[in-house]
This record gives sequence, structure tokens and C-alpha cells, in this order.
Amino acid sequence: MLKKIFVFIACFIFVYSNAQKHPFLYINKQDANELLQASKNTIGTSSVFKQSFLETKKEVDAFVGKEVDVPFPVDPAGGYTHDKHKSNYMLMFNAGLLYNITGESKYALVVKNMLLKYAVLNPTLKKHPQATSPFAGHIFWQALNDANWMVYAGLAYDLVYNFLSAEERNKIEIGAFKPEVDYLTIDLKDWYDRLHNHSVWASAGIGIIGLASNNKDYVDMALYGSDKSGKVGFIAQMDNLFSPDGYYTEGPYYVRYAILPYMLFANAIDKANPSMKIFEHRNSILQKALITCLQQTNSNGSFFPLNDALKEKDFTSNELVTAIDIARSKYGKDNGLLTVAKKQNRVSLDKGGLLISNELMSNKIDAFFPYKTIESKDGVLGDEGGISILRNGKGEDLSSLVYKYASQGLGHGHFDRLSMNVFDKGNEILQDYGSARFIGIEQKYGGRYLSENTKYAAQTIAHNTIVQDEISHFNGDTDLGQKYHANKLFSDFNNPNVQVVAAIEENAYKGTTLKRTLFFLDSIHGRKYIIDLFMVNAAVAHQFDLPFHYNGQVISTNFKYTTPKTLETFGKHDGYEFLWKEAEAIKTNGLAQLTYLNKEKFYTISTLTTDTTNIYFTRIGANDPSFNLRPETSIVFRKNKQSPIFLSVLEMHGYYDTRNEFSYDSYSKVKEIIVLQQDDKTTIFKIVLNNTSLLFALSNNNFDEKARHNVTVSSENIQWTGPYHFKKMAN
Amino acid sequence: MLKKIFVFIACFIFVYSNAQKHPFLYINKQDANELLQASKNTIGTSSVFKQSFLETKKEVDAFVGKEVDVPFPVDPAGGYTHDKHKSNYMLMFNAGLLYNITGESKYALVVKNMLLKYAVLNPTLKKHPQATSPFAGHIFWQALNDANWMVYAGLAYDLVYNFLSAEERNKIEIGAFKPEVDYLTIDLKDWYDRLHNHSVWASAGIGIIGLASNNKDYVDMALYGSDKSGKVGFIAQMDNLFSPDGYYTEGPYYVRYAILPYMLFANAIDKANPSMKIFEHRNSILQKALITCLQQTNSNGSFFPLNDALKEKDFTSNELVTAIDIARSKYGKDNGLLTVAKKQNRVSLDKGGLLISNELMSNKIDAFFPYKTIESKDGVLGDEGGISILRNGKGEDLSSLVYKYASQGLGHGHFDRLSMNVFDKGNEILQDYGSARFIGIEQKYGGRYLSENTKYAAQTIAHNTIVQDEISHFNGDTDLGQKYHANKLFSDFNNPNVQVVAAIEENAYKGTTLKRTLFFLDSIHGRKYIIDLFMVNAAVAHQFDLPFHYNGQVISTNFKYTTPKTLETFGKHDGYEFLWKEAEAIKTNGLAQLTYLNKEKFYTISTLTTDTTNIYFTRIGANDPSFNLRPETSIVFRKNKQSPIFLSVLEMHGYYDTRNEFSYDSYSKVKEIIVLQQDDKTTIFKIVLNNTSLLFALSNNNFDEKARHNVTVSSENIQWTGPYHFKKMAN
Repeated sequence: MLKKIFVFIACFIFVYSNAQKHPFLYINKQDANELLQASKNTIGTSSVFKQSFLETKKEVDAFVGKEVDVPFPVDPAGGYTHDKHKSNYMLMFNAGLLYNITGESKYALVVKNMLLKYAVLNPTLKKHPQATSPFAGHIFWQALNDANWMVYAGLAYDLVYNFLSAEERNKIEIGAFKPEVDYLTIDLKDWYDRLHNHSVWASAGIGIIGLASNNKDYVDMALYGSDKSGKVGFIAQMDNLFSPDGYYTEGPYYVRYAILPYMLFANAIDKANPSMKIFEHRNSILQKALITCLQQTNSNGSFFPLNDALKEKDFTSNELVTAIDIARSKYGKDNGLLTVAKKQNRVSLDKGGLLISNELMSNKIDAFFPYKTIESKDGVLGDEGGISILRNGKGEDLSSLVYKYASQGLGHGHFDRLSMNVFDKGNEILQDYGSARFIGIEQKYGGRYLSENTKYAAQTIAHNTIVQDEISHFNGDTDLGQKYHANKLFSDFNNPNVQVVAAIEENAYKGTTLKRTLFFLDSIHGRKYIIDLFMVNAAVAHQFDLPFHYNGQVISTNFKYTTPKTLETFGKHDGYEFLWKEAEAIKTNGLAQLTYLNKEKFYTISTLTTDTTNIYFTRIGANDPSFNLRPETSIVFRKNKQSPIFLSVLEMHGYYDTRNEFSYDSYSKVKEIIVLQQDDKTTIFKIVLNNTSLLFALSNNNFDEKARHNVTVSSENIQWTGPYHFKKMAN
Repeated sequence: MLKKIFVFIACFIFVYSNAQKHPFLYINKQDANELLQASKNTIGTSSVFKQSFLETKKEVDAFVGKEVDVPFPVDPAGGYTHDKHKSNYMLMFNAGLLYNITGESKYALVVKNMLLKYAVLNPTLKKHPQATSPFAGHIFWQALNDANWMVYAGLAYDLVYNFLSAEERNKIEIGAFKPEVDYLTIDLKDWYDRLHNHSVWASAGIGIIGLASNNKDYVDMALYGSDKSGKVGFIAQMDNLFSPDGYYTEGPYYVRYAILPYMLFANAIDKANPSMKIFEHRNSILQKALITCLQQTNSNGSFFPLNDALKEKDFTSNELVTAIDIARSKYGKDNGLLTVAKKQNRVSLDKGGLLISNELMSNKIDAFFPYKTIESKDGVLGDEGGISILRNGKGEDLSSLVYKYASQGLGHGHFDRLSMNVFDKGNEILQDYGSARFIGIEQKYGGRYLSENTKYAAQTIAHNTIVQDEISHFNGDTDLGQKYHANKLFSDFNNPNVQVVAAIEENAYKGTTLKRTLFFLDSIHGRKYIIDLFMVNAAVAHQFDLPFHYNGQVISTNFKYTTPKTLETFGKHDGYEFLWKEAEAIKTNGLAQLTYLNKEKFYTISTLTTDTTNIYFTRIGANDPSFNLRPETSIVFRKNKQSPIFLSVLEMHGYYDTRNEFSYDSYSKVKEIIVLQQDDKTTIFKIVLNNTSLLFALSNNNFDEKARHNVTVSSENIQWTGPYHFKKMAN
């Protein structure tokens, strides 16, 4: 990801910013007039735009004519001074918008007074007392939050520029802005000159301040890095943090956050210098990034919780309101965006927001985002593995299988190579823990990532993938993980009966190859099936654990297990120390099945254990003295072998009607899983359902679409072309 | 509850039922015509009635012209034959309605064919093979379900009576009905002649069959018991199972279920013999029961999970759709019922259903049921304790404090004397486990109550009340518990600043008196406070545990505790064996505070521990080999003393805004709890908040509203009139 393929050095045609021009970075005078009309439109009383306008007005009006506190920073996130500065920058931005829309100077006064207070405060600030990383902020505990402040304070400054005297402008530029710009670009130069989402915010902050204050030096540093070479800075960040498909290496939760400074700064650049065509840069990478980001959500709008991710975040988050509104104004009408906008139920007070609001009134809006099977390559060149999202069903019955075989994903990446997560009916069925953090809650380590985040949530055992010898992938070393990526072997979404993806990871454990093939079958007699073939090839025998983090109430198992009288941890390190071992079944041999209930639907995991498998039930909660983790469960299949196969079926079935106290189809139909052939060249297996058998054949070393295969197993001749073969037969 | 105060013996004026009269027990011909018009009304395409009609039609149409299976009964609840017979009786009833509404004989044919099949099957049946109680059914595993069948089969028979030949009628009455009536009234006479919700269904079933088949003997047995003496039977059930306030001794979950046969049979009686004025019986007890039942729900419509109760049940359950529609037609328009009907979003295909559907179209419907503070006395005479529901706030911000000082509540009662539960913003804040059961799921013990229900869920430790020496109230003996009830000492809801209820339990433990006073304060600086004063008076020292089953994520505590390396159970019996001891704090001395987060709001429990208190954190899950229980948490305060006081504050505060990543008011304002005086006569204590102090004074032995009290504490003279005194002061 640190490789750079080309550096886009455009001379930024700097248009001299004069007072007549302001505001120009977010809305201009003509926009403001249109927005004023829309805010007054009585016909549109119920328009989302008008609602958003009134809400913003109500929030800002509470501060009009009052002394707003600009306190000396002392608290971590969640504490008073942190939260105050955070609400202050949004207040300035919103008041600046209202000043332009309504023309009422009381709003400009709010911004002016506050910026002048910051002009007094900021030169006095040193490293924040609550800083825990080398990248401390001044106003906030971390520099990232200072960068957020700069983005909104810079936009607010542009919005009230014409209201200020030259002397006031000078005070603000020298007092409020320069110390921040200097701090980030000089003191935190190494941090600023990175290809990382925090630095995107910093580039955007400095660039917006530069454009607003007519400071070419700032703008150039923003676009091309502190040395203006173009190796870093905003353009390099556009070139290097997304794959050509728009996949963001840190994952869906972070692209939600990162997309906003990209959009805000690109928007400002575009308004200052349209000839730069920033929104078309790299084949409209920002549009791709946005759409990819939205595709990486569950049908309830929640981002797939890959890497560090808080599960409560969905596409109605503030960042995406603004991002979608800017995208609308630049890329045109899009029904998918309208669906999201409708759920957001608010718009930005800008041109795009107004366009969307109008479209929401005049169009029939689809209930669901147009989810589809989508594959995103990771890496700047698209050659560092990727992620496949297989979709099955529609609307409320949409199921998503998320298969991650990407690169590490920088510091927020988890050790989750070849992990899969499953979503159905808007719920998490096989889950990823996400991150351990209570953002904005001071009592929980100032809202920062908790120690359990790296110690548990990022560890391999917290994911639905294989752990060797109770040690995480890459021994839990992010830098090592960052050097490697998994690789897709093949995928095929053309067969209407089955979607398939296979990927390989060769570096997570030295001498061991992990290979996982996932099949998502179209409904068979009303049930969806995911077939999970996880093949391990090791130099010597190891202990291999495959956990399934099932989410729901255990309904039944077909195997006997024992439950202990006292609970002990499942292991001692690499996340195992956080798990209580609630039950175990030693040396199972046959077909092991667990049926569980999630909300109103049944799910059965059926796993082949004929090569002798231990099964464990675990629950999170050990070694968690501050009760920081959620008590989630998993079933772990353990094989001690050199090269085991884990072959499992996840079956989605039935319905629990609590109102009528009926359950339908609550039993699995999987009767047998049989491996017919397994060698270096070929794997052939059969899954026997009640009335139907499913035959799968795979080539293990030739993924050529045109290669022809011919294998005879148990006197049956099986022929196929391409990497795999699937056949459904009556029993 | 078994006492009988008066027996209403009215001679049932039996009107000879002739063919011209049918149908008459649920709808008559005139109703059917009106319903037909409504079902055709194209203007009312979107009416709830029309939707319900079309849904019913769709369900029934699937079986028209087909052979519907009437299998020999073999399965428990959740199994095929159980579910089939259950769906069969609803199919007969619905098909019968459609026959009358549409006039299409294909629907009558469905009923006829099925009743004739039952006429062949029923005479062959013996005790169900899956029976686990002495009250086995024939068609189902328990007699209760057979009674359900009789109610609907009886109504269906009335609905198609005119379609049948005399010979067919004879076959059905002799073959399908008589074996069932005989079985319940002769073989299960002891069960039939009880004052119990199951027997209400049986009375209704036999009575409706009697009315439909013109069998006075059946009707008299239904109304007055198998010996027709009136000591039992439907009238006695109306007189003895509700308190005069309409409180149903088994609790809200069961009244939901029990109300239906009361309404269906009363409705049939009323239609057969209006002069009996059954709906006015006992001051319209059925209306009171229905309203009381609805008041016993949380603002999301869920029934308060007292006694055996499944938490997923709310007032949209089928039973209440029919009950509300019948109540509408008998008791007139009621805005509260309309609110509930709107959430139910379906109506019965009867006159009341149509009235409600029309009213839903023409009225503005309130978003919330008109919840209010309500007190219900328990016992036939209203002298067996009761339940107080204190309400605070409105709409989404409604909080409910449920205080139970009632009688045992028969076999489904829990050992929960003086327990309190708290609900806020539609969520459970201090919770009751409810019952351990997966109704309708065959794998979970055939959908019956699980053994963990009596072993854990019914035990005292599963409730927010005091346990002495780790032994449940009444030593967990239902018969013993049934002999006694708690008593209210006083309550006062007239002070706008505070609502208060005090109650006493003197029999749960021999030689020990439990006395709990709960205050619910109106918002102070935007926060609601519940003050819980639990005083124990014992003959000798004991171990007393007061658990609070908090529901949420631990945010912080102000006391240190230790967490063990291996988990052990909290105790060995009476439910303690199901709890893991996750943390403990020994000999705390001062103010102990736990702050937790439920959804988006903070709650703090502050407890005075100055008399030395051990504190434990527990989680359910031990000794639960089939994973039948939910892993819920509690904090337990333990005092080893002769007569301890447990004085606690539950504070509802702040807001966690995950979208904006802010938390507001996440810290408690309780600084100190001070007991100023404590003796047999008086308890005086003070709660010190940031800026305000709250002074409480109680008389411990004189609850006279007019008694004057005068106490001097720390040189301050406090005077008041009545059982308590409350004063809010600036610090």
C-alpha cells in the first residue's frame, strides 16, 4: 500500500481570492439564494431540506447572542473540553451557513467571536495533557481531532470572510490558523506526510484554510505534502489509499470516516479551480469509493464490521450525509444514493442537499440500497487480494456473505485472513467482533480504543478463520502482516445456482498454506446454504482451530458435549485468554451439527468431523476486569493434524413465529457430508440433504477457466471445465 | 384466591337453537352482510379490515379443495401433529367466517370435511403419548390445547351449521365433540372444575359447543361446573380469578392469554342470551381486566414479565386482537384500544373489528397507550396485596416502576415478593428474567416450560428483591406461598414531585420482616430518580442478598473489585447454582456506584454500604448444559446482619449519541447517601446530589394520613403529617 504508482503533480492554478468571491468553498452567494427560497417554501414544509434547515437553525439559535465557551483543553474524548471544542467547530460551520442563507449578521457574529477566541487560545497551546500517542493534538488529545477542527473552522472562515474586517481576518489567520498549520506540518511533519486517513483530514484542513485565506503555501502543502513534492499530500492520498475499484484498505468503517475529508476538500478544490477536474481524478475514484463503501453495508445499513469498527455505525452517519450530498451535486442523480438519503432523513445545507431533498419528494424511493454481489480488489494496483461480498435474495431476505482475503489494512487491520462473515435478514449470523471501543464515553479510557481491542478484537480467534497453535496470523505483528496479502484463486458468479470464491493465504503462518473456498447456493427448497471448504496444508502437524462466531440462542446439537463445573479460559494468549470454555466435545467423529436461533430464524452449522475433531463452546468475558467486552459466543472446531480439511455447511432455515407460537422448518436437512476424493489435484465431496444431493468437485492446482477435468470416483466419472463443478441431484 | 365470595347462579334462559338462527355465536347473518360490503369496498382498499380479510382469505384459500391432514396425534408442541391440529382449528374458524361473509360454499366444505374427520378420529383417542402432566389432552399433549380446539371448532360448527345435514351434525356432535366434552368433564373432572386459566378455556370450549349444538347440559356445565352447582365453572371463574380491580392473579402474561376465552365465551353467551348481561357482570369485570392488562405493558407494548412470562409477547398478540374487537363492540369506542389496535394492524372479521377498522381511518390515533400510574389490588376481595405501577414522563420518555407485593399467583407465580422492575424508553433497565421456555420449539423440551424455569427463573435470586441465606421465599414452595400475600402499607401519588409506595412481606421467611418503600421522583435537572429503601427485620443475623438485574454494558464503578481467574458458581441451590460469580468486592464501606449503558442512556445504581457490604457481579450460565438460559447480569449487595437497611438510588441520566460520538451527562450526580435516623418509629435519610439535597422522613409504624410527626435530628427539627415527608433543598 505504500508503493506509489504515479504521482499526480498538477500545478494548482491559484485564483486570487478576493473578498467579493467569498463564500466559495462550500456554498456561494447564488447557492445561498436558492437555499433561502427552499427554506421559505411553504409548499415544501415537509421537505427534508426544510427540516434540516430548521433543525440546524434551532441548534445554532441556542447560542446566538451568547458567550460561547472556548475552554482551555484539558479533557480526553467524552470530557467537557473535548466535547465543547467538537461542538464549537460544527457550530461555527452551521452558523456560517445560516449567515449566508438568511443574511442575518447575528449568525456571522457567532463565528467571528468564536474564531477570535481561538485566535487568542491557539497560540498558547502545547501538546494536549491527555495525549497518549506521539501524534498529540493541541485543542484535542489527538492531532486528528485538530485536523477536524481545521476543516470546519476553515469552511466557517470562508463563510463569514466578507463579514470580517481586515484586522479581524489577520488576527484569525495568524492566531487561530497558523499555529495549527505550523504544528501539523512542522512539529508533526512525519505524521502529516503520511498516506493515512488521519493525514487526509490534515491535508483537507490545511488546504481549506489555505483556500479560504488565500495562502498558496498552505494549499500546495495540502495537495503535495509539506515539501510540495507530491509524494504525499492530498493527491497522493487519492492515488494510494484506494484500490482502483475504490476499496479502502482500512475497511468499510474507516472509509465512512475517511470519505468526508476527501469529499469536502475535493469540493473546495473544485469550486476554487474547476479546471483541475479533481472529481474525475483517477477515473472518478471518489465516486467509486463512495459506492463501494455503501455496498459494504448490511441490509440495515450497518457497515460490515471488518477491522476496527464500531457496530453501531451505519450509512446514516453524519459523514455520509455530507458525502452523499456532494456526490449528488458532482456525479448526478443516483437512485441508490436516494435510498440512503431517505434513511438519513436529513441533508446538508448545500446545493447537493437541496437537489436530493427535491428528488426525495418527486421520486418513488426504493426501500433497499441496490445491493449486489461485488468484488473489490485491494492495493493501489489492485493486486493485493481483496474482498468478495456474495449476495443472495432480495429486500428483507437479502443475505450477504463477506469473504476477506485482503491486505492487512494498516494499523486498524485485524489478523483475519480468509475470514468470512454472514448476514441474513439484516442480522449478523456469523459475526466479527468489530472493535473494542466506546467512542465518546470518557469513562471508557477517554473514548479511545481499549486495550482489549488489540488484545482480543484484532486477534485471529475473534474471527471466523483458522488459528494455528493458538497464535494469531503473523504472530499478531501488524508490520509483518502489512508486508503480505492473501490472493484470490478464482471466483465465479455466473452460475445462477451457485456463487463461488476461493482464496489462499501463504504467509500468515510460516510453512502453512490456508485455502478457503466458499460456495453460496441459491435457495434449495426455500433454504440458503453456504458451503465452506477450508483446506490447510502444513509442513508438520499443528493444532488448527476454526471458530464460528455464531450469533443466537443454541437450540440443539446432534453431538454430546460436557459442561464444566467451573469455567476456565480457552487459552492463555492471542485472545484465547478472553474466552471462557463453556463446553467441550472430545474426539467427535461424524457429522456435528449446531442449530441456533437468531431473532426469528434458524441456522444450522454442520461440520464434518470424521478425522476426529474436538469441539468447544466459548464465551467472551475472561480477563476483562472492566467489563469492556460483549459476552459473545463461538463454536470452535479443533483438529490436530498436518493438513486437515474443515468442511462445513451453514444452512439458513425456517421461521419462529412467536406471535402464533409456531416454529417452521426448525430442523436441518443436512444428513451427510462425504469427502469422495482429496489429493493435491482434486477435491470432490458430496452433501446429502433430505431429498437432494449436492456434488462439488474442485481442481486444487489449476484454476484456468478452460481447463478440462476428468476424475473417476467410486466408479462414477465426473467431468468438468474450469476450476470447479457443482451438480444438484435427487437422492 | 380459592375463597369464593358469592356464587352467581342465574338460570341460563336457554333459547332453543334452530337452524334459522345459525350462525349466532360470533357473527350473525346481518354482520356477515356488513362485513361483505366492507371487504368489497374499493374506497377502503387500505382499511385494516380489508387487509385482514384478504390475509385470512389467502391463508384459507391455500386449503380450499384440498385434503387437509387430520393426523393421529403423536408429537409434542412444535412437532408436526401438534402444529397441524393447532392450525386446523384456526383454519376451521376462519373458513367458517369466510363462508358466511362471502357466501361461498367451498369454505363451508373445508370446515365440514375437517369436522367429519375429527368425528372419526376423536372417538379413537386416548391419553396423548407426549403427555407429561396428569392433565393430558387427547388431540394435544395437554388438555389445555384440546380446550383451545373446542372453542374454535365449536365456533366453526356454529358458522357452518346451516350447511350441514342433520346426519352430518349428528356425526360431528357425537364423534368430534362428545368424546372431548366427556373426557374433560368426566375423566379430567378435577382439572375441569378448577378456578384456573386452563379451566376457563375448557368452560368456554364446552359452553360454545353446547350453545352451537343446542345442548343445555353442556352449557350448564360450562357456566356452573360439572355438577352445575356454580362453585366452579365460567361464572365462578369470572368471580374468582380477577380482583375487583381486574387484576389477574397469574400476572400480565397470563391475563393476555386468559382474557381470550373469557371474551369469546362471554360474547357467545351475550349473543345467545343478552338478558344475562354477562358483560356487565361484576361491575364489568371483563372490561376492567382488559384495561388492567393493557396498563401492565411497557411503552413498547411488551407485557411486564412478572411470574412465568415470555418477553417476546406484547399487546399485538392474537389473543388481544380478538379481545379488543369484542370489547369495542360491547363497551364502545376507546382511544386507548384504538392505539393498541393500530399497532396490531389487523382486526378480527367481526363487527367489533369492522368498527375499529373504521375508527382507525377516521380518527387521529395516539402514538402511545394512555399509560398512567395504576395500582391494582390482588385477591378476590382485593385484600391480598397487589401491584403498583408508577409512571413518570410521557411518550418515548415514559418510565415505569413496577412494584409487586401481590399473592403467589398460582402455579405460574414466582418467589418474588416485593420485587421491583424498572422500564425506561421502552427498555428493561432493572429486569425480571421472565420464564425459561421456547414455546413452539420442539427441540426445547417440546416447547414446554424448561426445568430451568422452576430451578432458576422462578427463584427469588432471579428477581430484584431480597434473598435470605440463599434460600428462596417460602423455601420455593408454591403451596406455602399461595397461603400468604404481601400487604401495602401506604401509597401516595398526589405529590407532583414524588410518588411513593410502601409494602411489607412477613411470611416469606419465618421470623423475618421485609419492608420496601419505593419513591419515584419527578425529574430533577432532567434526571429521574428512584429511591429504594429496603428494610429487613430479622430475629437473628442472616445473610441478606439484594440483587439488581441491571440490563446494559458496565461503564464504570466507583469501587474496586476483583475478578477471578476461573469462574465458580455464586451458590449451590435456589437458583444461585445458575450464576457465575464474575467479580466481587469484599467489605465495601461507603457509597457504591455502578453506571451502565442501556441502548443510548446511562443508569447509575448508588447504594449505601456503610454497614459493610459485599458486592458481587453475576452472570447466568452455570449448570445450564443445554444453553437454555440467557447470559444476563446482576449486581448483588450482600449484608450479614440481623436487620440491615438497603438504601439505593437508581438514577436515569444522559444520552449516548453514537452518530455524533458524544456522551452527555454520563456521570452520576449522587454524592452522598446519609441515614440520619433509623429506629422502630422513624427512618430519616438524605441524598446529596451535586446542587440539591433530598430529605426523606418516614414513619415506620404509623401510616395514618393525618398523623403528625415531629423529630429532631442533628439539631434540625423535622415535622410532617402522614406516613412520609419529602423535601428538596439547595445544597
